[in-house]
Formats: sequence, structure tokens, C-alpha cells
Amino acid sequence: MRTRPLKVALLGCGVVGSEVARIMTTHAADLAARIGAPVELAGVAVRRPDKVREGIDPALVTTDATALVKRGDIDVVVEVIGGIEPARTLITTAFAHGASVVSANKALIAQDGAALHAAADEHGRDLYYEAAVAGAIPLIRPLRESLAGDKVNRVLGIVNGTTNFILDAMDSTGAGYQEALDEATALGYAEADPTADVEAFDAAAKAAILAGIAFHTRVRLDDVYREGMTEVTAADFASAKEMGCTIKLLAICERAADGGSVTARVHPAMIPLSHPLANVREAYNAVFVESEAAGQLMFYGPGAGGSPTASAVLGDLVAVCRNRIGGATGPGESAYAALPVSPMGDVVTRYHISLDVADKPGVLAQVATVFAEHGVSIDTVRQSGKDGEASLVVVTHRASDAALGGTVEALRKLDTVRGVASIMRVEGE
Amino acid sequence: MRTRPLKVALLGCGVVGSEVARIMTTHAADLAARIGAPVELAGVAVRRPDKVREGIDPALVTTDATALVKRGDIDVVVEVIGGIEPARTLITTAFAHGASVVSANKALIAQDGAALHAAADEHGRDLYYEAAVAGAIPLIRPLRESLAGDKVNRVLGIVNGTTNFILDAMDSTGAGYQEALDEATALGYAEADPTADVEAFDAAAKAAILAGIAFHTRVRLDDVYREGMTEVTAADFASAKEMGCTIKLLAICERAADGGSVTARVHPAMIPLSHPLANVREAYNAVFVESEAAGQLMFYGPGAGGSPTASAVLGDLVAVCRNRIGGATGPGESAYAALPVSPMGDVVTRYHISLDVADKPGVLAQVATVFAEHGVSIDTVRQSGKDGEASLVVVTHRASDAALGGTVEALRKLDTVRGVASIMRVEGE
Repeated sequence: MRTRPLKVALLGCGVVGSEVARIMTTHAADLAARIGAPVELAGVAVRRPDKVREGIDPALVTTDATALVKRGDIDVVVEVIGGIEPARTLITTAFAHGASVVSANKALIAQDGAALHAAADEHGRDLYYEAAVAGAIPLIRPLRESLAGDKVNRVLGIVNGTTNFILDAMDSTGAGYQEALDEATALGYAEADPTADVEAFDAAAKAAILAGIAFHTRVRLDDVYREGMTEVTAADFASAKEMGCTIKLLAICERAADGGSVTARVHPAMIPLSHPLANVREAYNAVFVESEAAGQLMFYGPGAGGSPTASAVLGDLVAVCRNRIGGATGPGESAYAALPVSPMGDVVTRYHISLDVADKPGVLAQVATVFAEHGVSIDTVRQSGKDGEASLVVVTHRASDAALGGTVEALRKLDTVRGVASIMRVEGE
Repeated sequence: MRTRPLKVALLGCGVVGSEVARIMTTHAADLAARIGAPVELAGVAVRRPDKVREGIDPALVTTDATALVKRGDIDVVVEVIGGIEPARTLITTAFAHGASVVSANKALIAQDGAALHAAADEHGRDLYYEAAVAGAIPLIRPLRESLAGDKVNRVLGIVNGTTNFILDAMDSTGAGYQEALDEATALGYAEADPTADVEAFDAAAKAAILAGIAFHTRVRLDDVYREGMTEVTAADFASAKEMGCTIKLLAICERAADGGSVTARVHPAMIPLSHPLANVREAYNAVFVESEAAGQLMFYGPGAGGSPTASAVLGDLVAVCRNRIGGATGPGESAYAALPVSPMGDVVTRYHISLDVADKPGVLAQVATVFAEHGVSIDTVRQSGKDGEASLVVVTHRASDAALGGTVEALRKLDTVRGVASIMRVEGE
């Protein structure tokens, strides 16, 4: 074993960073044996230097993250600050000063992954970010390395623990969205401002990263169709149950049937209770990967939290340290396929539509005509009504999202349709 | 991209090998882009050269595998022959002549992994074998790399598709073992001689490999406690159902509670229906990994078959080719922890025991005394009987396997115990 330690700079010392530091200290001998050299925490950049940080030598703590990454003797920078700036500038500065980088920053990688990979390549350094998607679940490495000889056709998963906790609570208790959100907030599963989670910005960033790696294509955050889950109601769950389904916020990355383009999207969807993703409870994450040769794989585990995220960060840290000792770099960005990313309208899916309609003869015929005119085939219709009010629940066969959206728009214009109570995509079949 | 192709020698062209060759041909451009150089099939060693092999240039086919691996211009040898010899000698010869090796050979790696890794290291070459355990499911790489910064405490899984198919059939149809085996054979899930599967030699080899990687310790095949599933009866499934359980053949690798030793075992066990492994159907595999920081992860997918296994082989092939271009090698064997492997008697588990007993007063007291004398605490007892015959079903709390085994031995000696109808371990709680 080489005796000169590898020096690690930690940017950020919150829930994840403090756990990374703790494990680096308590498991130092194991890490050294696995890497082939000791690793040393050489500096910790924080915003509040006066906070007491158990187990961290105060002499290592600094508020000057820029000076830390510029020191020149740092082998690996671990970035767990989050957000776009200053993380982005710190990472590119780290590359320019000879360090490799391990990051848990989904927003930054989704937005600037290509430029950051280019900066890493320019300086012959590594950029690893297993922790950016689905916490502790090994997903980036399996997609990038284990499936490197295969052709991935679909990635379908629950990649946000907060929203899964909320939806699971709604499903099991019959609670409404606000009530379930309040519970999640009280239990620490949702942040004070839950926007990034419930509006699916977080899941969209992860979908962009996953789609990019799965399809060897650059997928920008703007390429990802995004629909949050704040409009999901207890009534939607009741409708889902009637269909033998539940509702999950899904990230779905798909290669088109002809292989010539890909799509990426995040939205709530009904999935059958028999689908393994339906049984993913609380804040857990799970991701299905369908590929040509391997078939259907599933990866399941805790999608967030200090320790699980630290586990992913440290796995990357060991890999990056090994690469440094071996004078090599790991696999970087692979975007050679450069497939076009199609808009949401091109996605082929199914709709579950609840309509409030007038309770009189001929309504169903009118509605069915609208579907037919848009080339959307109906799978099932359920009609119920009393006192002049009625509801129609239509579940379609697979059609383009554009045709389905056009159908709904036309339905809204019918005199006999008083309102569209809900629209939900149906997936996982 | 470098233009000189990397040369691959394929040893074996059966179900897996032919699929590897097919994908190398049909996906050549993708593989080249991902590796950074073209890969070329430089030779295929087979036993029956006259067999028509679609898509493979007959000029590449040879019966002289030794000459092929000695050619000196081979970059990577893919070994999908299986068995100990000639695979072992061919692999060491390949290292000696400058090639890295990708293998799907669980029996060989379990038996001689340490020596083969040493041979690879000696020549500065790679030995990868993701396909040896659980087919297409990325498991070796996640354990060896993704969790390299974590401490794995437990690996619990279904790693043999044939036996899972048989047990699933017994569970869902009520069939006996022989009937279910016959069905599996007819459908091609079981081989003509199913011994390696049903006597759990195959699963034991996988358990040895998984335990070694998970615990950074050499675990020999002889260290793995092995119990096949040929004695599992329809009555056992009925008992399992009464407990809200099903029966699976599990591979279980555990770190002792004090962390000072490990165990590895393969045997049929009852697991609660609520456990995700209970829902692994047909020939699928699934493996739970519990680690200190990451918590509980699960990996699920097809555990066998030509295409899935080829997917794993090709993932390794891409990694090994990248390493060669970069002049590096990937992580090799890690056995630094060198923990002692404890015998089965030290394993802490629970027993489900069915006894045929005399239907008279005092029997339960006698039986309970035997448990108490061996320090085994009883969780539940269910007594039923008629016409002078009775049965007692005892489920224990956790105790050492030695204490549980001693209890059963003592029970057999009681006059009032006419027979021990079945013993099954209970796991997954």
C-alpha cells in the first residue's frame, strides 16, 4: 500500500457532508485497504464555521471554499453543497487545480453535466455522481458500466422519496394532498418549502441524468416533461383503486419504438397494484430498467437521507481514489448516440379520464365520437349518475399524448361535458 | 477513437457464447463508441466445429482453445465454457499470454477465485465475472464498487432460477417437488440432471462469491453450509401458508453481530409473504443487501438465460477493454479483512418444527422442557390431533443453529415424539 495519503476536500458539511466525514474517520482503515492508500480529510468548507461539528478537527474548517479547491494538493473534492452556484464554479476550479470531483448535486449535473464532464476530461480528472440519483441505490454505475454492453430501452422509476411518502400516505389513509404533505413535513420527509419535490423539479433533474446515461445522449433539463403531484386528490386514489391501481410520481425515460428518438418525463401516473413499483412504500425509491439483452431489472433502496447518500458518495470516492493511484480515469460522459429528444406529445401512453356529464341519452355516443375523431381507442367506460348529474370514467388504449391531449380539449368543448374532473396517465403495463 | 481493434477470444459458443458473439456483431458500433475502440471477435473455441453457427465466420472457429489463448494478440478472453477444467488452465494461460479475462463461471470462481485473481495480478490483467452470480443483475459491481465505502452486514437472496421456478410452482399450484421439477424440466428451466441446482451446489458457489466480495474475506466453497430443496414438500408449503409465509431457497451471507466473523449458507427457508423476496416469481432472482450506511438495497432481475447472461458478460467486456486502453486494471480481489468464517452451528436463526406426537396429556410439557434445556425460546406452538395421533408445530425465537439442532436431536429421543415431520428455518424478519 502506498503511504502518502490521498487528500480529500469536503465542500458542505450538512446532513450528507457530516456523515461522509464521520465515515471517513471511523472507517479509515477499511477505506485505506480498499483504496490502496490512506485517505485524509484535508479541509472542510462550510458557511457557518462556528457550529460545533463532532469528530471534525476545527483546524480543517474554512469558509473559503475557493481557496480550499485551489490549494493544489487536493486529490478529490467532494461537493455536497447542492444548488448551481457556487457549486459549479468550485467544481470547475477543482478540475483546473488537479482534483477529481465526487458530487451529489442532481440539479447541477442535470443542468451542466456536459460542460462539467468536458472540464473533467480537459484536465484528465474524474467526475462521479452516483449520489445525485436515488440516494444509496447503485444506479448510475450499473447503467453506465454494468449495462455498457446492452441497449437500454426504458427506465421507469420512483426517484423522489418525499413525494412517494406523501402519495403512499394518501393511498393508505385516504388523506388529501395537503394533509399528507403536512404529515411528511412534520416527520422531516418534506422540506419547509417542498416545491422542488412536489412540483417534480427534483425528479425531473434525475430523469434528465438517467436518460442521458441510459441512451448515451445529452438530455437537458428542458427536454424533460414535468408535471408535479399537487393536483392529485383522494378521489383520484379512489378511481385508481377501482381500476386495481395506485398512483405514483414516476420518472419515465423511453426509447421510441423505432429506436430513433427518446423521451423523458416526470408525472403522477396510475400503475397496477401488481407492478413491483406499486409496493414501494414511504420514502423508498425504486427504478426499473428494461434493456434488450438483460430484460427487466429493478433496483430498490433508500432514496435520500444522510447515511444512504454518504454511502453512495463514499463508493464514488473509493473509485476515484483508485483511479488516481492507477493514473487512470473512469468512464466519463457518453453522449455519442446523440438521439433527438422528442416532446411529450410524441409519448405513447394511456389516459384515465373522469368527466362530469349531463345525465341524458346520447352523451356517451358524443364522447365516444370525440375519441374516435382523434384516433384514440377506448379500453373501458364506466358510467354512473343520479339526479341529472352523471360521471363517465374513460380509460383509453395506448395513443400519443398529443392525440390524448387533443381529445380532452375537444371533450371540454362539448355542451354535455360539464367538466373534466381528472386526467391521469396509466403506466406500467 | 483508436482504430486498432481490441481482439476478443470466445471460449465456448453455447447458449451464452453465441449470444455474446451475436451482440458483438450486431451492436459493434455501439460497443466501439462506448469502449473508445472497435472490438473484434478474433477466435471462437468450440467442441463441435461442424455445428452451424449463424453469424459467426467459420474461419474463426477452432477446437484448439489452448492455441487460441496463447496467440499473444488477444486482448480479452471471454470464458463461457463452465466447469473447472479446462476453463481454469485456459484462464491462467490467457493471463500468462497477456489477455484479461471475463468469465461467467461461478463454480470455478467460487473454488479458485483467489488463485485466479493472483494470476491476474501477477500479469497486470483483469478478471471480471459479473455474469457468474445472478445472471444479468448487476451485483458484483455494486458490491465491489458502489458499496466500497460502506460496511455490508448481510446479503440475502434468491440466486438460483431453477429452484425458484420449482418452489414458485409448488407454492402456487400445491404440486409436490417431483411434479414441479418435471414441469420445470419440460419447460427448459431445469437441466436433465438437475443436481447442481436442486442440491444447491450452484447457489452455494454464488454465496461463496458474494460473501467474499461483501466481507472482503476469502470464503471457500467448503465454508458455505449447503442444504438442497429436494425434501421440501407440499405439506411444508401448507405449514408456511398457515404462518403467512412461503418457502424460498435462500443464499444468506452474514456478518456476526460482534462483527468478528461471517457465515455463508444456502438452504430452503420460510419467509413472510410481506417480504419482497416472497414475491420473486418463476426463474427470477433477487438479492437484498443490508449495509451500515446505505441501509437495505434490493437488486432484481433475470438470473439466468443466454441473453441476460450475455448482457453481464458484455458489460464486463466493455469495462475490461476500457481498462486496457487506459493502461489500468479494475479493482481485483479484496480479502484484506480476512475474517474467520464460522460454521453453521454459530448462525442465529429461527426454526419451524412439525412433530408427530402421542395424543396424551403432558406431551407439550415434555417437548417444552427439551426446548428450555437447550436454551431455545419458543415463539408459538400449535397443537392438533385426533384418534390418538397428534401434531405439534413449534416456531422458535432466534437461537444458534447448534442449539436448535441439539433440540431437535433430543426431541427425536422422546418416547412421546413419534417423528419429526419437518424442520424449516424461518428468515427475513
